[in-house]
Amino acid sequence: MQQLTSQALEHIPQRTKTSIMVIGGAEDKVHGREILNTFFCRAGGTESRLAIIPCASRDPEGISSRYRTIFEEMGVSVVKVLDIREREQGENPVWKDYLEDCTGVFITGGDQLRLCGLLADTPLMEKIRKSALEGKITLAGTSAGAAVMGHQMIAGGGSGASPNRSLVDLADGLNIIPEIIVDQHFHNRNRMARLLSAVASHPELLALGIDEDTCALFEGDDTIKVIGKGSVTIVDSREMFYTNEPSVGATEPLSLFNLRLHVLCHGDCYNISLGKAMPSAACSESGWPPECRTSN
Amino acid sequence: MQQLTSQALEHIPQRTKTSIMVIGGAEDKVHGREILNTFFCRAGGTESRLAIIPCASRDPEGISSRYRTIFEEMGVSVVKVLDIREREQGENPVWKDYLEDCTGVFITGGDQLRLCGLLADTPLMEKIRKSALEGKITLAGTSAGAAVMGHQMIAGGGSGASPNRSLVDLADGLNIIPEIIVDQHFHNRNRMARLLSAVASHPELLALGIDEDTCALFEGDDTIKVIGKGSVTIVDSREMFYTNEPSVGATEPLSLFNLRLHVLCHGDCYNISLGKAMPSAACSESGWPPECRTSN
Repeated sequence: MQQLTSQALEHIPQRTKTSIMVIGGAEDKVHGREILNTFFCRAGGTESRLAIIPCASRDPEGISSRYRTIFEEMGVSVVKVLDIREREQGENPVWKDYLEDCTGVFITGGDQLRLCGLLADTPLMEKIRKSALEGKITLAGTSAGAAVMGHQMIAGGGSGASPNRSLVDLADGLNIIPEIIVDQHFHNRNRMARLLSAVASHPELLALGIDEDTCALFEGDDTIKVIGKGSVTIVDSREMFYTNEPSVGATEPLSLFNLRLHVLCHGDCYNISLGKAMPSAACSESGWPPECRTSN
Repeated sequence: MQQLTSQALEHIPQRTKTSIMVIGGAEDKVHGREILNTFFCRAGGTESRLAIIPCASRDPEGISSRYRTIFEEMGVSVVKVLDIREREQGENPVWKDYLEDCTGVFITGGDQLRLCGLLADTPLMEKIRKSALEGKITLAGTSAGAAVMGHQMIAGGGSGASPNRSLVDLADGLNIIPEIIVDQHFHNRNRMARLLSAVASHPELLALGIDEDTCALFEGDDTIKVIGKGSVTIVDSREMFYTNEPSVGATEPLSLFNLRLHVLCHGDCYNISLGKAMPSAACSESGWPPECRTSN
């Protein structure tokens, strides 16, 4: 694909559909920066006005500085950091005003419980959620920022054991895409058993395991598209007809019958309503990937 | 359930159906010994004549001595060790004669490549395979002894990465249950990604991930029953309609669409032809678990 100049970028129309990027952590920040580039493009390229939310991190200055540099290198001139350290700051009208003409919000990694503790149910978060769902902004979250996307969130857990309730810690998320439950660093940290443990408790949710440097891009038209280096694992329980979850102890192994499992890679897509995966060749018809590159 | 004496055991009819026990390794050898007890019962209780095959192990004497002690403690009087160290020994009529009236064969853990190297295509192994399939013996294999059950075998591999072809080493197994591919120490060693990698190359096989101290018991009537402490994960690709496996490099991530996934626990069963899992309450009608206990 042709390398576009920053001048050419100005002629690309801004995408107005809902565009929420759920990133499995450790996205490439140095070489191709494929996922961060996609966020940049979706948010409006060099015309984008970005906000970074580093609240999950214990080093909010360091992490936001790193992302700010990356986005500035791509040609973004307006990058604001919403460095919120007390819940009360989420009420500050300064942030809300800024969000009014913001085109992209990026939530960094760190601790998802800390992130939710600072932001859940604040007017700021409500504004971001609403703007993302209305397609006014492109919202991206990586690692902890991905974990918080659902109504239910995986806050922690273990591996190396048969699926069981004690293998996963669940908490309330930021409820941006209520119908999903997300695990990140997925195959990298061997989290299948903990995701299955979460599924047993919440079979009403679509479970996504997102690998590092990989993104599940939610688009307005009920579709998930995968970009990046690894895979997105989808566990769909809508046909599950049995689990022993209600009747066993916290450390007893879980039964789950009749799950549907998909593993998707770069370019593949998934229709949420139909529960159907499509290979990249079938997905690219809908103008994918976006024709946008950084200015350098 | 009532504790039966060794006298009572003599009145239990020997099961003649095919009974192949595929054990995920690290089965309890000290406390309840549930899986080893089941093998003992299925093989004929105190009347059983057992053979131990320690060929996978680099310490065949040590490992066979341990199992011999356990089975003798249960009340078995005839325990023979088929300590084969050269392929030529597999031709020795002494072993074949012994197998004529043998009721149970137990294959220990170790290295599955070593096991196959010593036994594959020997008259001894053919005899065991035939006897197992005709229901003349109860055959059990644990860990490496479980891995070899299929026509295709997982010989090794890695974890902590998106499913990809380089994550799994495949080799020929002992072809006892050709239609399956087995991974063991499954959730304990986080082997979902490597099993999925195997599935992409062999979607025609039913993939089983068996946890430690857990057994998938294959019965003559097309059924798998689960016993033990952990779970048996079944990945069924019969409805898979797409994988990128034929067209990607060895380290590129794999797509797999529309797999069926079941996680079964103690007492649950699975009909292989129908691809249907059933909870323990529905399985126990068929006389399960067997009414048999050790003599001590």
